[in-house]
Formats: sequence, C-alpha cells, structure tokens
Amino acid sequence: MRSPEATVTEATAAETLRTLLAGQPVGIVGLGLMGGSLGLDLQALGVVVHGLVRREAVAERALSRGLASRVGTDPALLQDCGLVVLALPLDLLLQPPSSLVAALPPGALVIDLGSVKGPVLTSLQPLLPRFVACHPMAGTAEAGVEAGLAGLYAGRPWVIAPSGQESPGDLLLVEALARAVGAVPVRCDAGDHDRAVALVSHLPVLVSAALLLAADQGGSLGQDGFAALLRQLASSGFADTTRVGGGNPVLGALMAEGNRDSLLQALALYRRQLDRLTAAVEQQDWPGLKQDLERSAEVRPDFL
Amino acid sequence: MRSPEATVTEATAAETLRTLLAGQPVGIVGLGLMGGSLGLDLQALGVVVHGLVRREAVAERALSRGLASRVGTDPALLQDCGLVVLALPLDLLLQPPSSLVAALPPGALVIDLGSVKGPVLTSLQPLLPRFVACHPMAGTAEAGVEAGLAGLYAGRPWVIAPSGQESPGDLLLVEALARAVGAVPVRCDAGDHDRAVALVSHLPVLVSAALLLAADQGGSLGQDGFAALLRQLASSGFADTTRVGGGNPVLGALMAEGNRDSLLQALALYRRQLDRLTAAVEQQDWPGLKQDLERSAEVRPDFL
Repeated sequence: MRSPEATVTEATAAETLRTLLAGQPVGIVGLGLMGGSLGLDLQALGVVVHGLVRREAVAERALSRGLASRVGTDPALLQDCGLVVLALPLDLLLQPPSSLVAALPPGALVIDLGSVKGPVLTSLQPLLPRFVACHPMAGTAEAGVEAGLAGLYAGRPWVIAPSGQESPGDLLLVEALARAVGAVPVRCDAGDHDRAVALVSHLPVLVSAALLLAADQGGSLGQDGFAALLRQLASSGFADTTRVGGGNPVLGALMAEGNRDSLLQALALYRRQLDRLTAAVEQQDWPGLKQDLERSAEVRPDFL
Repeated sequence: MRSPEATVTEATAAETLRTLLAGQPVGIVGLGLMGGSLGLDLQALGVVVHGLVRREAVAERALSRGLASRVGTDPALLQDCGLVVLALPLDLLLQPPSSLVAALPPGALVIDLGSVKGPVLTSLQPLLPRFVACHPMAGTAEAGVEAGLAGLYAGRPWVIAPSGQESPGDLLLVEALARAVGAVPVRCDAGDHDRAVALVSHLPVLVSAALLLAADQGGSLGQDGFAALLRQLASSGFADTTRVGGGNPVLGALMAEGNRDSLLQALALYRRQLDRLTAAVEQQDWPGLKQDLERSAEVRPDFL
C-alpha cells in the first residue's frame, strides 16, 4: 500500500522522467522478471518501451503480454532510445557480447539491473560513454517472459552505485525512473553495495542451502524410515529457513561468482558466529548461548 | 482447512477419548501456549478440564479466558483426573520438582508435550507408573497465559514416543486425544525423534541466529553508514532465513540443552555442508556449486 505522499512523489518523478526522455522510447534488453516488470510499469506511465530479446518465440509472447509496444530480435529496435536498460543475467553483464555493445545507441544513457555492482562497473563503464550501475532489490521466485508483473518495484530499494564518472543529469534521470515505478532510490558506493548484499542476500542462500543438504544427508544416515520421519516433522520454521536455499541454482551460482570476494568474507564472518554458538553447546555454556540468542532476537527487527 | 474425512476421524476420536476418560476430567499442568490451547480444544469436545498453575494471577486470567473450567494453584485440583498433561517448559520436565510428582494422582495416565523425548523418558518414566512421552509439533511465536488458542494442533504432527513399557490402552487414549484435536499421531522411537528435531527444528534456530549475528557484526565492521545500508537492503529472503533465529532465546537455549548430543551431530553435518559450499566458492568451482544448489532445490519440496 503506497502512502498519498508516495503517490505524489511517483507522479512528480514520472513527469521528470518523461521530460528528460523528451519523447524518446526506453529500450529494455531482456524481458524476464526484471525487464518485463519494468516494461509494464513504464508503459503505464505513458513511456514508449521497445524490447530486445534473443528468440522470436519470446518476442511474440512478450508482445502478446504487452511488456513493450515493439519487441524483436533486431538490435535496430534500440536505435532511437534515449535510455537503454540492460535487464540481463549477471554473466552477460560481466562478459558483455560485442554484438550487444555494438547494438547500444552511442548517445543513449545505459543502465543495468545486476545484483553485483563493482564487477559490473569494471566490465561495462569502459565500454559505454553514459552508464549508471543500478540494482533494484525486487524479485519473485519466477523467471522468464511470463514472470514480469506490474508493481514489482513498488516500495523496494533501488540501488544506484555511481563511480564518480556519471553526469548529474544522468543520475537525476535514473532516480526519476526508480521513483516513478514506486521504488526508493538508495545511492551508495559499489563496494559497499556488494559487501552488503553478500551479507543479507548471497550468504543467506548458502546458509539455507547447507541446511537442506544437511537435513537430506542426515535422513540418509538414519535407520529405515528416518528420512521419512524427518520430512514429516519439518515444520514452518524449517520451510522459512530453507526458502532461499531452494531457489534458482543458476542465479545462486552466478551471484556467488559475481560477488566472490565479498561472499567469502561474509562466509568467514558467518563461520565464526556458528563456531561460537557450537562452542557454547559443546561446553554446555547455556547462559552464553542464551545471551547470543538474545542478541540475535534483539537485532532482527532492525533488518525488517 | 480440514477435509470431510478428517472431521469424521476427529469426531470418532473424540468419542473414543470421552469413552476412555469415563467422565473423569483432564488435568493440565501449565496453561501457556500448549496447555491453554489444549484446554480450549478439549472443552470444545465436551471434556472437563482442570488447570494447575503456579501463580494466582495466572489462574484468574486462565479462568477468565476459559482455558479450563477450574484453575488454581492447589494440586488437589488434579485429584480426580484420569489423564494429566504436563504442559511445562523442558527444564521442569527434565528435573521435575518433587512437589509436582507428588501432586500427580497415582492412578492417572500422565503425558508430557516437551520438545525432546529421550531425556524426558529418562527423567519421568521411572517416577510415573503410567507415562506416555508426546511432542505435538505445533506453536506460534507467543507464550504465556494469553497465548493459548483453539485449533493450534489441527493438521500438525503429534509425536508419540513409546519406550515399550506403555500399555496398549494408554497408547490408544493418547492417539485418540491427538486425533480429537485434529493432530496427526506419529509413533516413533524417542532417539529418532530427537535426532529428527535436532535437524529440522533445533539446528535451524542456530543456523538462523548465526546469520543475524554475522550480519550485525558485518555492519559494525564497515564504514560509517554501512550498518544502516545493510539494514536497508535486507529483504524478505533475509527476513525468512532469520525468523527462527529471532525467536524466544530461553526456549532456544533449553532445546539445545535438552537435545545437546543430537544437536551437536546435526551441527557437525551442517558444518560439513557449509564447508563444501564454501570450498566451491573458494576454488571457483561454479559447476560444483550449481550442482549442490540444484540438489538443495530438489530436496526441499519433500520437507514442506
């Protein structure tokens, strides 16, 4: 539910966005969850959207879903766009195909929506005269051309990670874009972003996956029927703790690859805390364990 | 939503329960979440419930909430009860005060609802001629005399862990009790139960708490503003993964204490899986990491 103030901010931002685009279409490369959702929201604001995809079948489906007014596989679609959004998987952002780079109109502002920012700045900024690195932190469990939905970005943080080379006008346009779709722009250093998402987004995936793997292995080590008992007794607590570990394996591995250094630091921090809790159980230090659990219960609300 | 078959089963079970109780009241010791909820459900089935609590103020509140028809601090309340339910914290079950044991009518069947079963069988079975160890796996985040609610047990597993000393009639009565409140009786070995809940219930608490502690510590190690950024970027995935780690610290520490051996085994299994995932990131073994994440995504639905 958006507040009346938020609605005014969105309307003002949409006006700013339309003014800065001066009638030029927005090009979106990739019409999966992120790109498709953005296409729906932008068109609802009266912005013309052109979509570039890799396969004809996807183009047809995207068109019939109304994700953009023109969709195709021919890069010429981007020609008149004042803003191009790269809504692509991380591996393509980190090693952009030369055909993709060649397809981007030289005068356009280009942004990405990838989940790591330092490596993307390194890979894309040298190739593109006007580039702003973004990470809107929104998502669902879905992917592909059927996944895009209106309002995906509403109320979510939209990280903008400038390197210092961006023009103030380009940053203004990107902030207007974020606000116009209901998101909350958050400007921060790319390294800080990557360290932060390592801790609150990428680390949880591995922590949660390890729990699923441990429970599965524990089941196979027990007597006959133990694996079934384990599954029968798993309740909502287990379901919640393992949700992100049961997510898309390809995305999980890509995030780990793209944010390896920060993720390893986060894993080391996590390991120390797990060791600390384990030591309390081993040494039967119940007051110490209770104190640590009190601390974790105390800090959690700040993260919600 | 219960199926029509479940409703028939519940009605039959309630009839069996009333027949076996032969008009005697059920005594419930402790009217917190578990005991209070059971009191509400049993009375709805036409069973008379007497509640024993430790404080007068709690007795008054329990009575005004209708958790039992008679509530007080005098153990004489239990005198005519054919079945007594010990709905007490684990520490009291593991080291039962002699006053509690003396208060139990010698002829009554006694059951507990504690979250570990091997240690409870060891502590209580030698003291009680008719005892059945139970663990209904239901709960909410609430505790205390205000927490009890009707229907808490509906659809949830109700573990019955016989040691072999129980009479078939007593086990029948306990199964009827479980079914009458809509739960699904699951008979299993106490050791298997404890190993299973260590993996799917107690381990997740520590895994999740360690994540909160790591994120909190990570925040404090960063530059100015980093701790705030971390909290701003934490999304629903972080919230889900940390839910059980933000739970009641006293309960968490009691469970760890009561199930220490199985929990240490579960922690060791978990540690190996976390090490395996960490090694894949360190060694940049992305196909291996993807394979492990595929496996975790594949096993999760069985646990839901």
